[in-house]
Amino acid sequence: MKLYEQFAEEIAELIRVGTLQAGEKIPSVRYASRTHNISAATVFQAYYLLERRGLIEARPRSGYIVRSHANGVLVEPEQSNLAHLPQETVATDVDVSELVFSVLDSMKDPSTIPLGSAFPSPTLFPLQRLSRSMTKALRETPAQAVVADMTSGNATLRRQIMLRAMSTGNKYTAEELVITNGALEALNLCLQTLTQPGDLVAIESPAFYASLQVLERLKLKAVEIPVHPRDGIDLHILEESLTRLSIKACWIMSTFQNPLGASMSDEKKEKLCELSARYQLPIIEDDVYAELYFGLQPPKPLKSFDKNDLVMYCSSFSKSLAPGYRIGWIAGGKFAKQIHRLQLMTTISPSLPAQAAIADYLQHGGYDRHLRKLRETLEAQQQKLMLAIERYFPTDVRVTKPKGGYFLWIELPHDVDSLQLFRLALAQGISIAPGPIFSASQSFKNCIRLNYGNIWDAKIEESLKLLGKLINSFQHVS
Amino acid sequence: MKLYEQFAEEIAELIRVGTLQAGEKIPSVRYASRTHNISAATVFQAYYLLERRGLIEARPRSGYIVRSHANGVLVEPEQSNLAHLPQETVATDVDVSELVFSVLDSMKDPSTIPLGSAFPSPTLFPLQRLSRSMTKALRETPAQAVVADMTSGNATLRRQIMLRAMSTGNKYTAEELVITNGALEALNLCLQTLTQPGDLVAIESPAFYASLQVLERLKLKAVEIPVHPRDGIDLHILEESLTRLSIKACWIMSTFQNPLGASMSDEKKEKLCELSARYQLPIIEDDVYAELYFGLQPPKPLKSFDKNDLVMYCSSFSKSLAPGYRIGWIAGGKFAKQIHRLQLMTTISPSLPAQAAIADYLQHGGYDRHLRKLRETLEAQQQKLMLAIERYFPTDVRVTKPKGGYFLWIELPHDVDSLQLFRLALAQGISIAPGPIFSASQSFKNCIRLNYGNIWDAKIEESLKLLGKLINSFQHVS
Repeated sequence: MKLYEQFAEEIAELIRVGTLQAGEKIPSVRYASRTHNISAATVFQAYYLLERRGLIEARPRSGYIVRSHANGVLVEPEQSNLAHLPQETVATDVDVSELVFSVLDSMKDPSTIPLGSAFPSPTLFPLQRLSRSMTKALRETPAQAVVADMTSGNATLRRQIMLRAMSTGNKYTAEELVITNGALEALNLCLQTLTQPGDLVAIESPAFYASLQVLERLKLKAVEIPVHPRDGIDLHILEESLTRLSIKACWIMSTFQNPLGASMSDEKKEKLCELSARYQLPIIEDDVYAELYFGLQPPKPLKSFDKNDLVMYCSSFSKSLAPGYRIGWIAGGKFAKQIHRLQLMTTISPSLPAQAAIADYLQHGGYDRHLRKLRETLEAQQQKLMLAIERYFPTDVRVTKPKGGYFLWIELPHDVDSLQLFRLALAQGISIAPGPIFSASQSFKNCIRLNYGNIWDAKIEESLKLLGKLINSFQHVS
Repeated sequence: MKLYEQFAEEIAELIRVGTLQAGEKIPSVRYASRTHNISAATVFQAYYLLERRGLIEARPRSGYIVRSHANGVLVEPEQSNLAHLPQETVATDVDVSELVFSVLDSMKDPSTIPLGSAFPSPTLFPLQRLSRSMTKALRETPAQAVVADMTSGNATLRRQIMLRAMSTGNKYTAEELVITNGALEALNLCLQTLTQPGDLVAIESPAFYASLQVLERLKLKAVEIPVHPRDGIDLHILEESLTRLSIKACWIMSTFQNPLGASMSDEKKEKLCELSARYQLPIIEDDVYAELYFGLQPPKPLKSFDKNDLVMYCSSFSKSLAPGYRIGWIAGGKFAKQIHRLQLMTTISPSLPAQAAIADYLQHGGYDRHLRKLRETLEAQQQKLMLAIERYFPTDVRVTKPKGGYFLWIELPHDVDSLQLFRLALAQGISIAPGPIFSASQSFKNCIRLNYGNIWDAKIEESLKLLGKLINSFQHVS
C-alpha cells in the first residue's frame, strides 16, 4: 500500500468510527502535511482518493468536509427489531424454496435494474486479463495432466490458495483442501457430510436464502439464531439453543454476512470457537465476501481461531475475481477426505480450464491490484447508495453500515410489506430482494436487501427515487 | 463420409457379422473395383484403412485376409454366466463405495499402465483446438452475459446440443435441456428428482460403479437386473421385478454399456419404452459413449423411442471431446424444471468458460472430423487388445465384442479371483478394473474390465503379457 493510500485510510477510519462527523472539516492540506510529516502532494492524493470514494467533498473556500451520509445520519437497525422471532428458538421445517425461486425467476430480465441481485456487476472483474491467463494455462498444461487434475485439483491453484490463506492469517493445510464448483457446492458437501435428514442445523436469521434452500432440500430443520446487524450472530441465544436442542452443525458467515453485512469482532470469533469446542459443534464457515473489506486489514476468518478442528472453511472466487468460472474451495479439516469422496460421487471435479486460468491469474495477474480497485469502487458505491436512501426514502428507515461486501439491509417502516413492494418495483423494472426470502419463518416482512455492486449511473439513481416513492405510498395507504 | 470410407465400412460390417471369417481372403482390388464400380485407388484406400484398423492384413502373394482376432475366435460371455445373481431379483442395500474408492485410489499413480482406468487417453482429444475456441469465445463474450448464462446456460451451447441431437435421431426440446457439470451431476440430479431415501432403483448388473456409489449415498436400494453382454438389460427379468417390487426409477445405459459394452437393438429399445409406459417407470438414460460407435450409423438413444415423456436423457462431452471441462447435459422432459432448481441449489451452473469454449468448438472446430478419427483409433485399439488377449490369456477366457466405446469385459476362469489379480497386477505397475466393483452384491469375482482407450505401445503389450502370466498362475495354484 502506498503512503497516500495509508494516510487516506487513516482519515477514512476516523470517519467510520465517528471521530470525524458529517459536515465537519477535515485537516487542511497544509496542516496535515506538517503534522504527519508528509508532502502536500501526498495529502492531495489522499484527499482526492477519499473524494472519489465518496467520504469527503470539496466546499468552495472551506476545504474538504465529511459528507453527510458518510456516517451517523442513517440509523442502524437493532437486533431487537428481530424480536418477531420466537422468544425461544425452535427447529423449523424449511419451506421457503418456492418463494425464493419465484422471486429469483421474476428478476431474470436483463433490462431490470438489479438492486435485488445477488451478484456484483461482472464489469467490475478483470475478465479479459483472466482470459489471457486461460489461454496461457491451456497452452502450458500437458494433456496427461487431465486425469490427475480431475482427482485432486490443479496443483498450482491449490498452492496459490494456500499461500493466500497464509497471507491473510488463515490457517489450513494442503491435505484438507478440496477445490469445488463454487462456494455453494462447498457448503452443500459440508452439510451432507455432517448431517442426516431430520437433523437440526443452526443458521443465522436473516440468512443467505440458498442456505435455507439447501436445508429444505436435505430435509434438515433450521434453528434460526438472531444476528446483530453490526457484529453478527447472537452467541447467547446460540448457546441457549445448544443446551436445549441437539444441533448437528452451524452454518455461519462471520464476515460481511449476507444479507446484513455484519462482521464479528476477533474477540467474538474466538468466543464462538470456544463455544463450538465446548459443545463439539461443527461449524461451516461461509466466507465468500472476505476479500471485499474496506478497511486496512483483512478480516480474520473464524477458522483462524479454531483450535479443535471443528470449523470447515468455504470460500470462492465468484465474488472477488471470476464470476461464472464456478471455482471455490473447502478447508475441511478432519472431514476433508469424506467431503472429497462425496464430490467424486456427485460432480467429480470442477472444470479444469477454469482452475488453470485462475491459478495462472493468481500467480501473474495482479490480484491484489484488482482487489484494491474493486474495494474502492464498492466503498464509493456504498456511499452513493446511502446518500440516495437518505435523500429518497422515509426518514425513519434503518440501514446497515457494513465495512465490506456489496449489500445494504434496510428496515422499512412497519407498514411496508416488502413482498408487495417487490412486486410493485418489479412492475417498474426494478428488482429488490424482499426480507422474507432470508428466513425459514419468512420473517423480516418490512425489510429489503439492496445491491450496490453495479456501476452507479442515472438509471440507478432514478430507480432509487422511484423506490422511495413506492415506499412512501405504503404509508399513505395505512 | 468419403467413398473409400463407405466401402471400407461395408467390408468391416461383413467381418463384424461373420460373413467374412478370420483367415478368409477379402475380394481382390481388381474384383472389388469392377463389382462395385469404383476405382482401384478407392479400393486401395479402403483396404489400407481396414488394415490400419486392424481388421485385415496383407499376406505376400495372397492379397488381404481377415485377421484372426477380428471375429469369431474369442468367445463372448453368456448372460447365463451371471447366474450367481439370486434367481429372483431382490432389493439390496448398497455398500460397495469403500471397495470402489480403495480400488480407484490405488490406481492414482500416473506411472501405472492404466488398463483399469475409466478414461480414454486425453491425448486422443483436440485439446489445442479447444483451447483456441476458448480464447475466441472468451474474447467475444460480453461481461454482462455472465449472470444470464449462470441461470440458463450458454445459449449457443444449448442450440448446438439441440442441433446435434436432431442429427443423430434424438428428439428433445430446448425447454427440457439442462446443462450440467458432466454426466455424473446429470445422473445425480435425475435420481434425486425421482427418489426418496429407501426407494428401490433398478440398475444393470454389472453396472457402472459410480451408479452404485450414488445409490449408496442417496440411501437407495438396488434391484440388479442382469445384462446380456451383447444386447443389454434382460427385459423379462426387469418386467418380472416390476410386477413384484415398487421400483421408482431405472438407471440404464442402452448403448455401449459400461462395463459390458452391450448395446440394445432398436427393437429392444422400443420394447423397453413400452414397458416403461406400462408400469409408469421413469428411466434415467446414461448415454455418454453414444458418439464412440464403430459402425456407419449412430445408435439411436432410448429417448428417441419414448412416447410418454418418461425417459430422462443424460450425456456429456467428457468421453468424446473435452475431458476435464466437466460439461454434460440432461434432456429431462417433464422433470426438467425440478432438475434445474435442484441444480441451482447445489452447484448453480457449470463453468461458463468451458461452456463457451465447447459451444464455439461445436460450431467451428470440426467435431465430426475429430470423432471419425477417434472412432477409427478406438476400433483399431480394440482389435489390438483382442489380439493380445488371444495371445497371452488362457484359451477359455470369454471376451465381449462391443461395437463402440473403449472397454472390454473379460470373464476369466472361475478360479481367478479378480480382486486378488488386481492387487498382484498393481504391484507390477498395471491397473485393471476388478468385477466386484461393478455390482451391489459384489458379484463377477472372476471378471475384469480392460480399457483400450490408450495409445497402443510396447509397454501396454508387455503389461498384457504379464497379466496373462498372472492369470495363468491362479490356475496352477488351484
